[in-house]
Amino acid sequence: MSLTIRFLGTAASRPTVERNVSALAVVREGETFLFDCGEGTQRQMMRYGVSFNVSDIFFSHFHADHFLGVIGLMRTMGLQGREEPLRLWGPRGAIRMLQRVEHFGAERLGFPLEITDMSPGDAVQRNGYRVVPFAVDHRGASAVGWMLDEDDRLGRFNPDIARSLGIPEGPLWGRIHRGEAVTLADGRTIEASELVGPTRPGRRLVYSGDTRPCIGTLEASRGADVLVHEATFAEEEAARAAETGHSSAREAARLAAEAGVGRLFLTHISARYSRDAGIIEREARTIFPNTTVARDGMEVEIPFTDPA
Amino acid sequence: MSLTIRFLGTAASRPTVERNVSALAVVREGETFLFDCGEGTQRQMMRYGVSFNVSDIFFSHFHADHFLGVIGLMRTMGLQGREEPLRLWGPRGAIRMLQRVEHFGAERLGFPLEITDMSPGDAVQRNGYRVVPFAVDHRGASAVGWMLDEDDRLGRFNPDIARSLGIPEGPLWGRIHRGEAVTLADGRTIEASELVGPTRPGRRLVYSGDTRPCIGTLEASRGADVLVHEATFAEEEAARAAETGHSSAREAARLAAEAGVGRLFLTHISARYSRDAGIIEREARTIFPNTTVARDGMEVEIPFTDPA
Repeated sequence: MSLTIRFLGTAASRPTVERNVSALAVVREGETFLFDCGEGTQRQMMRYGVSFNVSDIFFSHFHADHFLGVIGLMRTMGLQGREEPLRLWGPRGAIRMLQRVEHFGAERLGFPLEITDMSPGDAVQRNGYRVVPFAVDHRGASAVGWMLDEDDRLGRFNPDIARSLGIPEGPLWGRIHRGEAVTLADGRTIEASELVGPTRPGRRLVYSGDTRPCIGTLEASRGADVLVHEATFAEEEAARAAETGHSSAREAARLAAEAGVGRLFLTHISARYSRDAGIIEREARTIFPNTTVARDGMEVEIPFTDPA
Repeated sequence: MSLTIRFLGTAASRPTVERNVSALAVVREGETFLFDCGEGTQRQMMRYGVSFNVSDIFFSHFHADHFLGVIGLMRTMGLQGREEPLRLWGPRGAIRMLQRVEHFGAERLGFPLEITDMSPGDAVQRNGYRVVPFAVDHRGASAVGWMLDEDDRLGRFNPDIARSLGIPEGPLWGRIHRGEAVTLADGRTIEASELVGPTRPGRRLVYSGDTRPCIGTLEASRGADVLVHEATFAEEEAARAAETGHSSAREAARLAAEAGVGRLFLTHISARYSRDAGIIEREARTIFPNTTVARDGMEVEIPFTDPA
């Protein structure tokens, strides 16, 4: 069950030669989502080989650098003959904003759009995972971060014990693995706990969107495998970060450390650090060593901490 | 008096890895305009060193691949602290379309927009040149092409004749050069034609936008130094070109030959020829040898045919 992320844009506010504006592709077992979709995202997808068969786009907020790319992307999907619905999710205001977008440019799309306004605490439950928005703090904007949270996996089934207990291989094994107690032909009842270990956690990916360090991101990130947090500025501009509703590298690192995440990736890098983000990475690593400044095109696999 | 064009996007409909969607920068003696501004144009400008100090954008029509980039571009201009007005020009519908664009994304722009609906035959007259829309034929869309037409330059002033006629060097030379007849201190009247040659033409650049070959482009292109014409398809898809309101390479070349232009540049290349547009170029050159298929980043200087 693969889970990878691919950074499509890692710049703040405006693109640079090296970095496009915000977008993050998430590919889970062949299913592709986007978190945010700034101008030029469709071309970044082409460049980095991300499928256009995107099922969902989750928007953090509706500042231009986080959503303008959806207009051209949808139009290209239409040109490609897409018929499947595209689901768009965002904080309150998503419907109002994205309906305007739908009618931009001359042609009709040719496929249905489903747009949903989400509040923190709502959840999109899918087979095996859920995607959940959480409250963030971005200058009073209607803004959220997003958490992708996989369901727990079944505990380990021990076939040796099963055989030694004389449980015939077949459907019974599956029922026990799923936690059922089963009664055998000889009348014995077998509890799942006799041969199935404790459930094992799924993976958790957290995307902060634009925000000050905040309790919403902290809570969502507890125990996350990967936290993608914005770090618009280095410490020299910490005051500016506070003023503009963004985070410094150290602030993001402090939050990652407190939440106990596995890995931290920094994105939404101000143009002045675009070419050389060394200072951002160094500052964050003094607090949270397992930090990487993302760059456009970077792909990250997220394995299970407890592999099957 | 320099005049150069820089291709910022040469793809049709949707971007490819090699080609972004439509935009063409024109730099005349330090003044920068754009003809069209597809998604991602601001990043192309950064990549190819085109100044953001753009005074005017001339839109050919309002299909998504020709104008979406203006939203992000204007926002970046705002972030850069622009205060000068930006003038946007397009065919009928420009005001309605571009006013919607102005309020996209959260922030106010911080500089004035001036939007003008133009009809074929209207003209923007500036000091030394005019920019004129002409009618094109693009599936009934409200669409135009644009011609940049420099004023005639003064004829050559012959200083040797001036001296031999005993005309004192100074303001009188300037008046004669500008075509005035002057009376000298000794009572003689000197006609300008005695020492000033015929006026010499300025340069003409024509940008077709999206169109079938049509009379509007032909008339505008007569004697043009450079014609930038769309050539979405090769001959194998001539029928498709007709259907979709576009031109084939040969059709563009035929028009260039008939109009007697100096050089022909082909753009708006369909994705299938994006990587290798050799067939487009070969087909056009059989009819009009001085043809080049534009590629993103290509810069072309347009000299006077009769240099000063």
